[in-house]
Amino acid sequence: MTRHPATMFVIACVLFFPLACNAQDRQGDWEARQFDTEYQQISVERIVEDLEHPWSLAFLPEGGKLITERPGRLLFVEEGEKTRITGLPDILARGQGGLLEVSLHPQYADNGWIYLTYSKPNDEGNTALALVRGRIEGEHLADTEELFVQNRYSRPGRHYGSRIAWLGDGTLLVSIGDRGPDPLRAQDAGDHAGSVLRLHEDGSVPDDNPFVEDEEVLDEIYSYGSRNIQGLLVDPETDDIWATEHGPRGGDLLHLIEPGKNYGWPVVTRGRDYGTQEQFPHADARRMEGIAEPVYDFGPTHPPSGLAMVTTGRFNRWNGNLLAGGLLSERIRRLVIGTYDGQYEVVHDEELLLGALGRIRDVREGPDGNIYVLTDHADGALYRIDPVR
Amino acid sequence: MTRHPATMFVIACVLFFPLACNAQDRQGDWEARQFDTEYQQISVERIVEDLEHPWSLAFLPEGGKLITERPGRLLFVEEGEKTRITGLPDILARGQGGLLEVSLHPQYADNGWIYLTYSKPNDEGNTALALVRGRIEGEHLADTEELFVQNRYSRPGRHYGSRIAWLGDGTLLVSIGDRGPDPLRAQDAGDHAGSVLRLHEDGSVPDDNPFVEDEEVLDEIYSYGSRNIQGLLVDPETDDIWATEHGPRGGDLLHLIEPGKNYGWPVVTRGRDYGTQEQFPHADARRMEGIAEPVYDFGPTHPPSGLAMVTTGRFNRWNGNLLAGGLLSERIRRLVIGTYDGQYEVVHDEELLLGALGRIRDVREGPDGNIYVLTDHADGALYRIDPVR
Repeated sequence: MTRHPATMFVIACVLFFPLACNAQDRQGDWEARQFDTEYQQISVERIVEDLEHPWSLAFLPEGGKLITERPGRLLFVEEGEKTRITGLPDILARGQGGLLEVSLHPQYADNGWIYLTYSKPNDEGNTALALVRGRIEGEHLADTEELFVQNRYSRPGRHYGSRIAWLGDGTLLVSIGDRGPDPLRAQDAGDHAGSVLRLHEDGSVPDDNPFVEDEEVLDEIYSYGSRNIQGLLVDPETDDIWATEHGPRGGDLLHLIEPGKNYGWPVVTRGRDYGTQEQFPHADARRMEGIAEPVYDFGPTHPPSGLAMVTTGRFNRWNGNLLAGGLLSERIRRLVIGTYDGQYEVVHDEELLLGALGRIRDVREGPDGNIYVLTDHADGALYRIDPVR
Repeated sequence: MTRHPATMFVIACVLFFPLACNAQDRQGDWEARQFDTEYQQISVERIVEDLEHPWSLAFLPEGGKLITERPGRLLFVEEGEKTRITGLPDILARGQGGLLEVSLHPQYADNGWIYLTYSKPNDEGNTALALVRGRIEGEHLADTEELFVQNRYSRPGRHYGSRIAWLGDGTLLVSIGDRGPDPLRAQDAGDHAGSVLRLHEDGSVPDDNPFVEDEEVLDEIYSYGSRNIQGLLVDPETDDIWATEHGPRGGDLLHLIEPGKNYGWPVVTRGRDYGTQEQFPHADARRMEGIAEPVYDFGPTHPPSGLAMVTTGRFNRWNGNLLAGGLLSERIRRLVIGTYDGQYEVVHDEELLLGALGRIRDVREGPDGNIYVLTDHADGALYRIDPVR
């Protein structure tokens, strides 16, 4: 008897390992699959294939989506058809660098502005995190304006951040990682690395930024002491800023970002050294007076990526929850937020799609209320999650 | 080309889903397999097969092991050969009930006492958690003495506990669950359900138990307010008592058990109702004055089973860590304990063997320093984990 491997797979999976075999269809034929979760049955469909390390996703109000691929491609995708947008700035894709975030201006429908973050090279081959905006005309990015470049180029292609989120007042936030080997940069107020920035839509600095009066701190800095914020969102109702911090081993955290606060990295961290298992070398403590406490410690390693909030009511059992994607952990954490003594806390934490899709790079709520997920693989994909009655 | 399904498996797994395919060999041919963990490469070998819902494990100093099977069998196992021990008391195996814990007296080498917990039926077909001891003579359990029976028989076969651990003073602890549908039993000091008991080796009550002077509390009770403690151990160096509490959904906790304390169930819990996702119906709060705080909240559901401490130095990177088995979560959580402000806290949490073995029922450190794991399946097994250089 001869069988196609995929057939053997399904048979074997059903018979032998239901948990683990969520992943059976990561490659190969994929049809919409249903999953039971704690309170919500869901259907997951792969809607775009063959994406090379896709990083971020934006939904165009006129239909279609923009997807960044880390090697440096911006794609317009509609009904599975991809169109590459040309006219991007010079991008050096190395390590974790490349073309990263894509985000629409809140008044995109009126002004057409698309914002991108990327690793910008200099003549020495070092890179800095940069923010650019432009408008799509046909298959080209036009009217491009470089809005921000971090103030120090450096060598390793690591820890760029860099998510964008929009506050209710029309300013935007950009996260920048500590850029790698010198984590103390996150505590250096004269270095953009390891911080969240707040800018006007044109890249200028709002005069109510927390440190504009402080000569020793760069004016763009809104908060600092972050290793590598890979998930960032603003609650549309409350303007609360939620961030998921990619710590060292086991130090992955959910933070509420507040102006002027120091989030501690690398002096205060929950993470362990990758080699020795001890407290991280620079770390003095797991907590400290004057350092913002995390809202939640992910506990088992959950290197976070995209962060979404469920808001439309389409998943009524998940409404108001945060969905935090994880890379190595290959799952989404559904976090239910409550309050205690005037502070937010996570009151429930569910693992979704454990091992089913692979490394999760981005999680977004679409305008249709469905959840969209990008996977970080050389042959990554975009998945759509629908609720099932 | 025709291939054996298992072969297809391995090929498919290696190609397509490395995380998920840990489970490839849960059934079928099993050879020792190696796994990378954060700080320790390990080898896992299945050493006893075809165990029907094995529950607990004890290592005999003269060689060989005792294994309980929940349906009511006590097995002596040596070099893969099983011998069934007869002479057990009448056991009603229903739901989570049956033959549960096996534990050796600390001076077993001198006195031969073996302790067992099980669900004991009455004439109405209700059950109570009971503790018996006996000595093995040949293939028979001799000299059996019933040491304790909980003071209320009840119907559903759920939430029995029931682990045994020995304190340095020679007394033993037994956990009893809340027995299911009436969780407020755990707050009823006149009901053994939902507590940790402390007894002399002969079942009598130590006169320094915390409530012996209190007319309203049963003398055996050492602590109360626990839903279903499924992992229990005493740190051999410090006499600290560690317990893993199987909460309702998402309410799985690590506790330090201290005499006379109330652990809150069901009035204080971190769990959510299985149906509504709201706070558990009886719960007033997630914390409360006078209720012992957990040392750790497992966060994502980790219904705990056996709990072990790594003590011998054979796994030098894991020394002093707790290993908490999980049923539905199909993994072991390695917990690194630290202290802050005089209190224990978990400073690191690693997932081991995620999905690789199935439902973990018990985790033990053997006298050889290796880690032994029982899986809760109709065709469960005993696995041995060795460190790899």
